Amino acid sequence: MFSPLIKELIESLRCLPGVGPKSAQKMALYLLERDSQGADRLAQSLRSALDKVGRCSQCRTLTEDHLCPICADEERNRSRLCIVETPADVIAIESTKQFDGLYFVLLGHLSPIDGIGPEELGLDRLETITQQQGVEEVIIATNSTVEGEATSHYIAQLLKPQGIEVSRIAQGVPMGGELEYVDGNTLALALEGRKKL
Amino acid sequence: MFSPLIKELIESLRCLPGVGPKSAQKMALYLLERDSQGADRLAQSLRSALDKVGRCSQCRTLTEDHLCPICADEERNRSRLCIVETPADVIAIESTKQFDGLYFVLLGHLSPIDGIGPEELGLDRLETITQQQGVEEVIIATNSTVEGEATSHYIAQLLKPQGIEVSRIAQGVPMGGELEYVDGNTLALALEGRKKL
Ligand SMILES: [Zn+2]
Ligand SMILES: [Zn+2]
Repeated sequence: MFSPLIKELIESLRCLPGVGPKSAQKMALYLLERDSQGADRLAQSLRSALDKVGRCSQCRTLTEDHLCPICADEERNRSRLCIVETPADVIAIESTKQFDGLYFVLLGHLSPIDGIGPEELGLDRLETITQQQGVEEVIIATNSTVEGEATSHYIAQLLKPQGIEVSRIAQGVPMGGELEYVDGNTLALALEGRKKL
Repeated sequence: MFSPLIKELIESLRCLPGVGPKSAQKMALYLLERDSQGADRLAQSLRSALDKVGRCSQCRTLTEDHLCPICADEERNRSRLCIVETPADVIAIESTKQFDGLYFVLLGHLSPIDGIGPEELGLDRLETITQQQGVEEVIIATNSTVEGEATSHYIAQLLKPQGIEVSRIAQGVPMGGELEYVDGNTLALALEGRKKL
């Protein structure tokens, strides 16, 4: 019932995470009927981002500049490095306002089955970076998943010989979490990681 | 924390209906990290649709062709015309498989406060179209809202002098309900129970 170009627009909107056939149709018609200006801006910014966004030469996060805003910020403490899987994790940690160092963004985790080894995550360059920057402390904040743990373990083994203090973010019961609703594995980790009061 | 082009992409994704700041951020990072092909296809199809999609010369729905697929379909019954507010309403009525005629898409409803009068809805051309096509029956399926009712009333007054049988879809559609969100069965009943005006 739609013409080919409208069908194609609906189909292509489905590449967006969380967008099914119904929402894609709604979005396409909305843009064409009511917001061609917004659609034009979106087309342009997609094009610019695709053409120009690459990786920060230092921390590997997404940016169109040689250095991302955080790596370029002279105020950050260059002796501390936090290693995360994705740019979204950087945002999550920044929102705590508890970390003033720099980041290293893996853009993934070790996954031999998908052909993602240390080189794909930039780990071959991590040693050089820690030495050049004079990093004294590394906090590994990869996800609390099997792959995230394996990646964390690999990185710890890689950096410890350099005499760097390497730590892993704590696992446990989330703030405000009621024990009754916390899953058993998390609870086991919380027990194991208990701190003296 | 994001570079300018990434910020701009996040901002521009917010023109999509139902997309807030959090989802826009998620979408932008997803596209750049994992689906640059999908992003490229989306940028291209937005551009093509913006450049080429206009209105069907007959029913006014969105299409890049002179005639939309329904108007171009020789099998449709040209003596019956269903008048709706939006292209999404066409889809909703088609899904009932209860209507074999052609459509006329207003792309809106009468709204003097917003400067939307009969001309903006193409009603100045509707009389010519019904005469040229030899339309014998018109079903008015504007939304069951105050504006939709007013628009329906206006159209009925316009077409009755032509000796056309004009009906309004039945009040099986809940008051205040927008066609796009009504289920197919309800809509089928509403079509079947249409009343002469
Ligand atoms: Zn950086
Ligand atoms: Zn048409």
